[in-house]
Amino acid sequence: MSTSLQPLPGVSWFDISDPNSLDLDKLADRFGFHELQVEDCRHRPQRAKMEEYENYIFCVFKHLRNDADFTFEDFDIFLTKRELVSVHEPNSDILEKARLRAEQSKVTDIDKIFYILLDTIVDEYSPVLDRIADETSEIESVVLQSPEPKVLARIFRLKRNLIEFRRAASGMREVVNSLVRREGGLLSDKFDPYLRDVYDHVVRTTEFIETYRDLLSGALDIYLSAVANRTNEVMKVLTVLGTIAIPAIAISGIYGMNLKGLPFQDSPYGAEWVGGMTILSTILLLYLLRKLKWL
Amino acid sequence: MSTSLQPLPGVSWFDISDPNSLDLDKLADRFGFHELQVEDCRHRPQRAKMEEYENYIFCVFKHLRNDADFTFEDFDIFLTKRELVSVHEPNSDILEKARLRAEQSKVTDIDKIFYILLDTIVDEYSPVLDRIADETSEIESVVLQSPEPKVLARIFRLKRNLIEFRRAASGMREVVNSLVRREGGLLSDKFDPYLRDVYDHVVRTTEFIETYRDLLSGALDIYLSAVANRTNEVMKVLTVLGTIAIPAIAISGIYGMNLKGLPFQDSPYGAEWVGGMTILSTILLLYLLRKLKWL
Amino acid sequence: MSTSLQPLPGVSWFDISDPNSLDLDKLADRFGFHELQVEDCRHRPQRAKMEEYENYIFCVFKHLRNDADFTFEDFDIFLTKRELVSVHEPNSDILEKARLRAEQSKVTDIDKIFYILLDTIVDEYSPVLDRIADETSEIESVVLQSPEPKVLARIFRLKRNLIEFRRAASGMREVVNSLVRREGGLLSDKFDPYLRDVYDHVVRTTEFIETYRDLLSGALDIYLSAVANRTNEVMKVLTVLGTIAIPAIAISGIYGMNLKGLPFQDSPYGAEWVGGMTILSTILLLYLLRKLKWL
Amino acid sequence: MSTSLQPLPGVSWFDISDPNSLDLDKLADRFGFHELQVEDCRHRPQRAKMEEYENYIFCVFKHLRNDADFTFEDFDIFLTKRELVSVHEPNSDILEKARLRAEQSKVTDIDKIFYILLDTIVDEYSPVLDRIADETSEIESVVLQSPEPKVLARIFRLKRNLIEFRRAASGMREVVNSLVRREGGLLSDKFDPYLRDVYDHVVRTTEFIETYRDLLSGALDIYLSAVANRTNEVMKVLTVLGTIAIPAIAISGIYGMNLKGLPFQDSPYGAEWVGGMTILSTILLLYLLRKLKWL
Amino acid sequence: MSTSLQPLPGVSWFDISDPNSLDLDKLADRFGFHELQVEDCRHRPQRAKMEEYENYIFCVFKHLRNDADFTFEDFDIFLTKRELVSVHEPNSDILEKARLRAEQSKVTDIDKIFYILLDTIVDEYSPVLDRIADETSEIESVVLQSPEPKVLARIFRLKRNLIEFRRAASGMREVVNSLVRREGGLLSDKFDPYLRDVYDHVVRTTEFIETYRDLLSGALDIYLSAVANRTNEVMKVLTVLGTIAIPAIAISGIYGMNLKGLPFQDSPYGAEWVGGMTILSTILLLYLLRKLKWL
Repeated sequence: MSTSLQPLPGVSWFDISDPNSLDLDKLADRFGFHELQVEDCRHRPQRAKMEEYENYIFCVFKHLRNDADFTFEDFDIFLTKRELVSVHEPNSDILEKARLRAEQSKVTDIDKIFYILLDTIVDEYSPVLDRIADETSEIESVVLQSPEPKVLARIFRLKRNLIEFRRAASGMREVVNSLVRREGGLLSDKFDPYLRDVYDHVVRTTEFIETYRDLLSGALDIYLSAVANRTNEVMKVLTVLGTIAIPAIAISGIYGMNLKGLPFQDSPYGAEWVGGMTILSTILLLYLLRKLKWL
Repeated sequence: MSTSLQPLPGVSWFDISDPNSLDLDKLADRFGFHELQVEDCRHRPQRAKMEEYENYIFCVFKHLRNDADFTFEDFDIFLTKRELVSVHEPNSDILEKARLRAEQSKVTDIDKIFYILLDTIVDEYSPVLDRIADETSEIESVVLQSPEPKVLARIFRLKRNLIEFRRAASGMREVVNSLVRREGGLLSDKFDPYLRDVYDHVVRTTEFIETYRDLLSGALDIYLSAVANRTNEVMKVLTVLGTIAIPAIAISGIYGMNLKGLPFQDSPYGAEWVGGMTILSTILLLYLLRKLKWL
Repeated sequence: MSTSLQPLPGVSWFDISDPNSLDLDKLADRFGFHELQVEDCRHRPQRAKMEEYENYIFCVFKHLRNDADFTFEDFDIFLTKRELVSVHEPNSDILEKARLRAEQSKVTDIDKIFYILLDTIVDEYSPVLDRIADETSEIESVVLQSPEPKVLARIFRLKRNLIEFRRAASGMREVVNSLVRREGGLLSDKFDPYLRDVYDHVVRTTEFIETYRDLLSGALDIYLSAVANRTNEVMKVLTVLGTIAIPAIAISGIYGMNLKGLPFQDSPYGAEWVGGMTILSTILLLYLLRKLKWL
Repeated sequence: MSTSLQPLPGVSWFDISDPNSLDLDKLADRFGFHELQVEDCRHRPQRAKMEEYENYIFCVFKHLRNDADFTFEDFDIFLTKRELVSVHEPNSDILEKARLRAEQSKVTDIDKIFYILLDTIVDEYSPVLDRIADETSEIESVVLQSPEPKVLARIFRLKRNLIEFRRAASGMREVVNSLVRREGGLLSDKFDPYLRDVYDHVVRTTEFIETYRDLLSGALDIYLSAVANRTNEVMKVLTVLGTIAIPAIAISGIYGMNLKGLPFQDSPYGAEWVGGMTILSTILLLYLLRKLKWL
Repeated sequence: MSTSLQPLPGVSWFDISDPNSLDLDKLADRFGFHELQVEDCRHRPQRAKMEEYENYIFCVFKHLRNDADFTFEDFDIFLTKRELVSVHEPNSDILEKARLRAEQSKVTDIDKIFYILLDTIVDEYSPVLDRIADETSEIESVVLQSPEPKVLARIFRLKRNLIEFRRAASGMREVVNSLVRREGGLLSDKFDPYLRDVYDHVVRTTEFIETYRDLLSGALDIYLSAVANRTNEVMKVLTVLGTIAIPAIAISGIYGMNLKGLPFQDSPYGAEWVGGMTILSTILLLYLLRKLKWL
């Protein structure tokens, strides 16, 4: 086996950055991995999972892709008693980050590297959560000020992202939980506090996701009630306008009739009288509507 | 027993493509199947289920019918220590697909054939999920652009299909889960990784169904808020039109009155004066409404 | 004990078709039933339940009344090692149906009769489920075509029935489940497949109830969005009408003014000119609104 | 200890009708109750709970206050091997009812009195449930006939009461359940059927509460859709009125113009011609709208 | 170790009011706390949690900040067999309150101090719950009287606070529950009643939070239906106004036409006749609409 696969020289950690490479088959053959798991590495995406065998543990972790696109990718790890094999997409930067951490803290234990990889993957969730928090706050303030359809589109896009995120995070929670609860076996018990720490992190993540979902539902409710309100306001304007216009229209209509016997018809101050009457009845009507709490 | 029932010559796999055929009774008699299970094969549809007896396992699996109609059908399997009996509808193509797979990989083990049948059935879910994914995306984009009642009908039809699908898939999940958790017995433990793989597949399917349900609910919310928005828009148009018309109507009404003493009544430029007045008061009114944030 | 209580001569199955009859007290005394259970037989309705004592099992089953009213009634059964006592309302036809089935299959075992009674009760759910399915489909198609308030009333009545049904069916599911899980005791294990069959039936029933509830909620959503849509449509009609009328009213108002200097006022083709102007401005306005996507 | 505290002479049942009385401290001291439970008796309200110690059981039960106000109060019971201490609010009539029942059935066992107290408390739920059932039915019928805001207020008040009730009842269910599941200990096993009976009663209560909540949500949906419908109806009236008026207004406007060349202007039957024209175009317009399914 | 860290002289309770202080590292070193827990003290906020090791228990409790801002802070406690270390934010007044309580009751046991700290933290929830209760009641009464958008903003702010509160409180519930269920170990069993008391308190808190959430949802429903109602009312006003105006406008339009042959045109009481006609037809129209239940 060429050492080119080994991120840290001298440590039996093998990294395969192309799931379709033949190296994976070779390693699987050498360490006795099941053909189905090799297939799982190649047929992506898989659900987050942990499978324990006599000789090795196989894990599928979900990590966020670098770009801001909210897509999750698989990061597969085989852990035997003495070796670790990691399989991932070519463009993942998890590997590099974990390698650096391991190098800096001079880690050579295979199970410590396993922990570092898992921790690095889960740590990547935090900046995304922060971005979601910001987006949610912004939506909440925008929706109260100007409930436009484009806010709606933002709400639904974020909601879709949260659905995606929740699926990945709750899968990870299950996996880390079964890693914590595992009795004895390949990972020594001294890692339990560390795994529990990662578990806390994942649980906190899922809790925040639920919180943001609740807040977004709230924002949608605000949106809908704001639109209902606005319709109501516009209706009122229409009614006030109508109320102002109606006396003018009715009275001017009456005096426009080719009839005899209308009061003030022949008075020289006819216009003033009728104008006054119109203004008066408009005011009276508005007052009445307000009094009856209709406006 | 005629070998015509045997899809693979020399393998004790018996296939009955008509649940009402007498062959089923004969086989049930020969291998000691319970009368209730034979009844279950005939009274369709049943729920997906797995029943373990001393001598055999009886399973009802749910598979999608070939046509694009989202109807599920039962696929019944009896598995004894040495024989497998499959019972299905005449028009099912699961049998043929599984037979080909078994033939190509030269499988003669009865329990491997059991796995292949189950896997083929679950594999058939994927293209349907993809079709649902496409339909959901399309609905989502259509609903934002033109919220017409016919999109609504599509949303509800898809929702109904998802309800159906979820019922079948969550039944299958339970069944495959109890197959995985089964200790010892008729299926040897070496199939556990394969069954777990199928289990992962079914769980992923149910998760996707939930995701699509969430997205469809979102689409319905978009639809409703889009309609509310449009009503709001139309109301505004009505109000603007009213606002434009009212001064014209009121003023022209006033000057239509058979009264004396109206200003400009006898001026030769009366029309210009009054026209100017009308236009001015319309602009003023629109400005006022905008200023008061009523429009 | 008079044999008049025995539906099948020679079989120690006692049937009491009036819970208040003294025969119940006599039998309770003779077989040592607890006073509380006798009370349960008399104070109806009870929840579906199964209580196991050293000497006997007491069950309350819920069956649908014959008439199409969606009301559930109690059917009480005491099962001892050698006797079965059934207690029910006078007008129940479950008893007769079960008696016929037992007679035809020449059943004399007390526990087989227990199974037949339970199965008959659960079988009665199916025609009602079918009726609900038909009603749901009909509502769904009606609601899309003509969303009238009377459909609403149908939706809510059916919803209420489903709430009732679900309460009874989920109680029965629990009861049958505990009958299946019971280890040893009064019912011999050879009935397990039969009880499991009944259990499947009840579970399927509850699943269908959930499905119909989901579909009804969907129908309600369709109703509400259809009404919102229609309001929107009516608003548009109003706006179009307003748009058509406004130029006519404004222009005719202008020419109705007692002013001098209006164009075409004295032209012999005044009517034609002004009419043309009116029609033109109406068309222009409609075109403008459409262009601005306001209509 | 003065016998004035003993509701039944000669039975070691002590009743304290004022939690702040010093008698409680004396009894707690004498029988060795924990200071925290004495505090629980005084700091009301507590959650329904059951705490089992070596020497005694402490229970907090929730009972409805006499007045029709839907408020729950605590009823505290300490049960030792040989004594029962009940603590309650001064105005509770549970005590008196239970005392009468115990007296009439000549009960002197301390644990039978415990059961009677619990049963009396739970029995008090039934009339309230009936009242809620009546109120729900009435609301349901009112809401369909006249969806006024005051029905809305009734719905929400009842909903609030149900929230309160559910909290108390589900607490009681837990408590009675743990009383039933308790193995051995202070309450002899012969009470199990009685406790199970109470348990059934409480479970039925919570089920009914859920049913009424469902029905009330339905009533709210009816209300909202009835309002939406009514808005729709009013809009239609407005549109029909507009449609009827528009031809009259437009045509009369046209003939009100000071122009020459209008048809029928000088005809002696001008009024009849133009009137006919107006009526005809109104009918035509209404017919058109109906034809286009706009009304 | 300087005694300046000891809130109570002579008791081995160490308090660190600045998580970043080096004293924490020193104490962690001396008592053998895990580095991850020290990190947890510094990286705030953490979830409420309880971690039990061989030599010590580590707890993260959530307490409300003093100001009325609804933000939660961590309060960390390490409890060994003989020492207690508390770590908190500089501005927390929990420490001072707990110190006073311990001083007054002359407590020197380390585990009693643990209980006092926990109890003080949970006690602080009560005034906040009361404030929420008041706010909820106020919102409920305001929303029925005047459903303005600013009530909506209050509803959503309170809802957001409740989401926050629920997250903290349900975390605390889990933690206190695991403290109660802990068998033996560092906290002696005599604290069980006290811990159970705290547990009851936290559960009651979470139940109240759920209740307030339900009530707030109800308030939102009231708001939305009130707005829908008001829109409906405004529509009716508009329709009534239209109905009143239409006969006047139509009739006056008719008599404004320059036509011959209109009835009463030349009568000296023309105005009276036509006026009467107008009033009569208005009344008739209103009566008709009412009769047809359109208004």
